[in-house]
Amino acid sequence: MAKAASSSSYESLAIGIDIGGTGTKFGIVDRIGNVLFSSEISTRGHSQVESFIDELHSHLSVLIEKAGGTGRMRGIGVGAPNGNYYSGTVEYAPNLPWRGIIPLAKLIQNKFQLPTILTNDANAAAIGEMMYGAAKGMKDFIMITLGTGVGSGIVANGKLIYGHDGFAGELGHTIIIPHGRLHEGTGKKGSLESYASATGVKLTAIEMLEKSQEASLLRGIPKNQLDSKKVYDAAIQGDKLAKAIFDFTGEILGLALANFVMFSSPEAIILFGGLTKSGDLILKPTRENMESNLIQVFQNKVKILVSHLKESDAAILGASALVWDMKI
Amino acid sequence: MAKAASSSSYESLAIGIDIGGTGTKFGIVDRIGNVLFSSEISTRGHSQVESFIDELHSHLSVLIEKAGGTGRMRGIGVGAPNGNYYSGTVEYAPNLPWRGIIPLAKLIQNKFQLPTILTNDANAAAIGEMMYGAAKGMKDFIMITLGTGVGSGIVANGKLIYGHDGFAGELGHTIIIPHGRLHEGTGKKGSLESYASATGVKLTAIEMLEKSQEASLLRGIPKNQLDSKKVYDAAIQGDKLAKAIFDFTGEILGLALANFVMFSSPEAIILFGGLTKSGDLILKPTRENMESNLIQVFQNKVKILVSHLKESDAAILGASALVWDMKI
Repeated sequence: MAKAASSSSYESLAIGIDIGGTGTKFGIVDRIGNVLFSSEISTRGHSQVESFIDELHSHLSVLIEKAGGTGRMRGIGVGAPNGNYYSGTVEYAPNLPWRGIIPLAKLIQNKFQLPTILTNDANAAAIGEMMYGAAKGMKDFIMITLGTGVGSGIVANGKLIYGHDGFAGELGHTIIIPHGRLHEGTGKKGSLESYASATGVKLTAIEMLEKSQEASLLRGIPKNQLDSKKVYDAAIQGDKLAKAIFDFTGEILGLALANFVMFSSPEAIILFGGLTKSGDLILKPTRENMESNLIQVFQNKVKILVSHLKESDAAILGASALVWDMKI
Repeated sequence: MAKAASSSSYESLAIGIDIGGTGTKFGIVDRIGNVLFSSEISTRGHSQVESFIDELHSHLSVLIEKAGGTGRMRGIGVGAPNGNYYSGTVEYAPNLPWRGIIPLAKLIQNKFQLPTILTNDANAAAIGEMMYGAAKGMKDFIMITLGTGVGSGIVANGKLIYGHDGFAGELGHTIIIPHGRLHEGTGKKGSLESYASATGVKLTAIEMLEKSQEASLLRGIPKNQLDSKKVYDAAIQGDKLAKAIFDFTGEILGLALANFVMFSSPEAIILFGGLTKSGDLILKPTRENMESNLIQVFQNKVKILVSHLKESDAAILGASALVWDMKI
């Protein structure tokens, strides 16, 4: 992706901003992926996007000065939920405090007087992995973020797939179990996200505890406090029901990954996010079920890798990486 | 895809060869997609690939002479089941008489002494649609061939997706109904091909006739003679069970298409092949079920189009179109 640095820009830096539902992380990154300075502000505290950008500007200005001033900044890359690469807008993002269609790239560009490019957070993560992480040197891979929701970024022929409208890569919303579990946010049934997200694992835990009579360490935990960390803690103590929760989640995730492989035949699938911390408890059933659903020509070829980028840096790195590919 | 013709090559022609399980079609095509000369030989009659290529060469040589001789031929494009673009091989094709891995592009190139490029038949069809058909000018679309099997070719960012190994785009084998109908050829359950192919429609007809007590025009037809044409004929006479067969097929195809849309967000999905001849009987339930499974951001955006290329020409056109993108 990266073009060779010209002699006049070899010292230029990129600003990466990752906007999440709760907080917004930002930092200044050099060409080889060192996060030189970084900080964070609240997203949720700003009901108006203008006040959010004002606070972002005042905090980032300090970092920019530390890093040598605006003149060294090549541009700003932004990752945001429901971000559209083509239009630079964030559209109807359920997890952000701003409603409707927000021309976020334009607002930031006007405030900072720096070229600004935006994409959705999972696409930014994919670019970060391609430039600095587990997908370095790969031309065909799929990034799956397993967090509160399930996000994805797809790279084929060395390029991110944005689709005709900029919204490609919503793999979390593909239907894996027809007429399956209701996804509250979309009203659709049986999507990957309704099972393989933090929310999904919690719902699976609640369902399995209700359906089964088996003793489990999880029975002592109030429903609203169940999460994949607690399921993990129980599973490593040998709790059968906790293991079954991961097996079930891996069964669905593995089937979904098989379908994705038969679409774009990636060299690897890179997983990122909270659920991956459960290691082989989730990865083993995922791998097994991916393989068992693949036709022969794809079997034992596709790596499932866990991102090794520091979680705190990955989002900033991914967003900043957009800058090096900008046409300016 | 097409590069501007250079002055020295503006009159050059391309040879397109489409290898099917039963017959092989071939023709000579000009830059703007006119099939100047074409013919056909049997594939099935040749248990040895060498004798197949000998016969292909003797028939094609006549056409080449008619078209002005080998000097006017820029190259040969081949579409074949299980064809691999990167290696030029056909690998373990269950519908061809030749076993194992066949270096088909190399064999043809040596025989004809012309640069030869090969890909799978559905990918060739996608390139044909992009250059001469319903996908003209599109940079993001998905081609689905609904024949004996279900094939696919995916174009994103203006390029065909081959994947890291050349086998991308096996959408017919994606699992739509987990633990669903057995696919004899692969041993997998619930794949799109097991429902939305000619074989799939026949199996659905047999199943529905067995399960239901309803009167139907289809009851007079021996099982082994049931096909989508006969189901169509019954449906247009108002046969309820025949209509239900298309509704069921469209339900599964529509769900599959929704998942594909949420992957690569294409401008259009181009359908080709026997099943499309049933028109709105299959297209209406397909469209409805695609839309109902899409999240909002994709709804009412993606066209489902039926290829308007002549079926006899489309395969040759697609294969020949590979030639114009060759690096020679």
